[in-house]
Amino acid sequence: MDLLTKTIGNIKPLDEKAMAAARARQDQLTKPAGSLGRLEELSVRIAGIQGKAKPQIKDKAMITMAGDHGVVDEKVGNWPREVTAQMVENFLRGGAGINVLARQAGARIVFVDMGVASDLKPDKQLIVKKIDYGTKNMCLGPAMTGEQAIKAVEAGIEVINNEAKKGLDIVGTGDMGIGNTTASSAVFAALSGKTAAEVTGRGTGLSDEQLAHKIDVIKRALAVNRPNPSQPLEVLAKVGGFEIGGLAGVMLGAAAKRIPVIIDGFISGAAALIAMALAPQLKDYIIAAHVSAEAGHAAMLSYMGLKPLLNLDLRLGEGTGAALGIFLAEAGVRTLKEMATFAEAGVSEGDGI
Amino acid sequence: MDLLTKTIGNIKPLDEKAMAAARARQDQLTKPAGSLGRLEELSVRIAGIQGKAKPQIKDKAMITMAGDHGVVDEKVGNWPREVTAQMVENFLRGGAGINVLARQAGARIVFVDMGVASDLKPDKQLIVKKIDYGTKNMCLGPAMTGEQAIKAVEAGIEVINNEAKKGLDIVGTGDMGIGNTTASSAVFAALSGKTAAEVTGRGTGLSDEQLAHKIDVIKRALAVNRPNPSQPLEVLAKVGGFEIGGLAGVMLGAAAKRIPVIIDGFISGAAALIAMALAPQLKDYIIAAHVSAEAGHAAMLSYMGLKPLLNLDLRLGEGTGAALGIFLAEAGVRTLKEMATFAEAGVSEGDGI
Repeated sequence: MDLLTKTIGNIKPLDEKAMAAARARQDQLTKPAGSLGRLEELSVRIAGIQGKAKPQIKDKAMITMAGDHGVVDEKVGNWPREVTAQMVENFLRGGAGINVLARQAGARIVFVDMGVASDLKPDKQLIVKKIDYGTKNMCLGPAMTGEQAIKAVEAGIEVINNEAKKGLDIVGTGDMGIGNTTASSAVFAALSGKTAAEVTGRGTGLSDEQLAHKIDVIKRALAVNRPNPSQPLEVLAKVGGFEIGGLAGVMLGAAAKRIPVIIDGFISGAAALIAMALAPQLKDYIIAAHVSAEAGHAAMLSYMGLKPLLNLDLRLGEGTGAALGIFLAEAGVRTLKEMATFAEAGVSEGDGI
Repeated sequence: MDLLTKTIGNIKPLDEKAMAAARARQDQLTKPAGSLGRLEELSVRIAGIQGKAKPQIKDKAMITMAGDHGVVDEKVGNWPREVTAQMVENFLRGGAGINVLARQAGARIVFVDMGVASDLKPDKQLIVKKIDYGTKNMCLGPAMTGEQAIKAVEAGIEVINNEAKKGLDIVGTGDMGIGNTTASSAVFAALSGKTAAEVTGRGTGLSDEQLAHKIDVIKRALAVNRPNPSQPLEVLAKVGGFEIGGLAGVMLGAAAKRIPVIIDGFISGAAALIAMALAPQLKDYIIAAHVSAEAGHAAMLSYMGLKPLLNLDLRLGEGTGAALGIFLAEAGVRTLKEMATFAEAGVSEGDGI
């Protein structure tokens, strides 16, 4: 618990001076003030996060965490549990969506086994922080123990601390775990007080009947566990997942090191809910890459007060949307750094703008 | 007129066979079918445009065309006319928004003087197709002659034909021209029958009073010229601009060579309106990068039946949004080409998806 407590204590407010300087520079660049819209906002926020008037984004990483879910026993989805491990193997061979989009964004990828149900072949791209061989079925009791929940979050902090040592200017988060939209919906319902029906979507593609069943499973998990909404670690333990806890740790650890975090979709969102409940000041460090096609994700972002950059009907997970978000953040930061000012370019300024 | 007629004749329907093959491959890739949303759509459409089941995006270019507008005499904006030339010089020195974002997207940039009001210093990055030293004031009569309108469109075709020879897998369009939101609003009103108030926005940042004046100017230009909405070249001549005509030519020429076109904001949109009125089959080749903050742009896209990829409150022009769109198109195409199929990766497939 020490590492977690210390990390939360290290999350400081944004650097207002760096933000003011960045904003002033944006207003002097050769364009109508504000005309780069959200790219300007991104550049100013990242200035505040990094504490630099001219922030930089050179070293980029995606952290994609995998874990299995006992609730899959309730048949909440269309995909067998072993797909989690198979997809991690696909990641390590470079054949998945996140591999392609991280390459395209110029980001290295770190894959983390937070709790896959089987042992994975050792690989230099794979970090093993396995808390257990999958969570327990949350319809029958807590998904994990309170100790495991802390261990999962602290493992995420260790992963990001280690990455930061190699040089890291921005990080994206992603997930893999058959059954993890069910856990994420349960986490959102538990923390927000919303009903299971309001926060539950079709995951990888459920029919109406399957969706009704999934909602019922979430209701049962909440009724059996009665997680206390004011205790985020209890919520994580009772209805969360190992990769969700790990990602919450990555977010907290990144903020403590003043590294901007681009979060992906519904599962990263559930992790952000837990992390922000533990440390409300984290919010300023979080950038929502996109609103996904998963029902409940828009409500989740709005509950956190996050405005997504993209709306491309993505619902793959893995961090695919976050990789695109890294590109946009870099675009914003580069305009701030590389564009000429009116004075430098000898361009006349408009009046009254 | 021969080059224009021939080019329009060369715009063929999309390759349905290539699209079907691309769609089939997307459905076999290691992800739930459809879960990459609009990235999948992009990959399939570009397969149809390029006529290849596995399209490629390697050679990328931005074409940014500049021209001046006589209507600036009516004080429709806050920026002096000489800013057009000054900004082109800024482009050539690499200091503008489009320089930064094209670099970020890995696209070369071609700048074209379609009708800047002064002579620009020769530069190897600058193609001079100057139709005239700015258009005439459309409140007093036609902005250009019918011959100049054809010459502008054909100049755009020549530019893209020349770029295609160097190797070109995708092209983005952009503009620079003080006063060109006024001309673009007039073009949209003339072709769509919408009122000036419905199609006019604040450009680089007008007050309420200035906006009312701009709307009045557009009304007068339409009343004086009475452009025939069924004659797109007449609309271009009477209330358009040289860069708008040139960009229409780029779009037609690109489609004739089966090159996807990513259009930027309001001015590229006006060019697309003219080009699609000349050749309705062009629509399939056009991808709208973003909906801008300029009032009227959303209505313009919806009038053309185009669904923008991004909504980032951009209103800079130059092609800045299109550069971001090129990145997304490349992301889509790369997932199609580089992701592993279920069979290749040994991943179990979900049921009923």
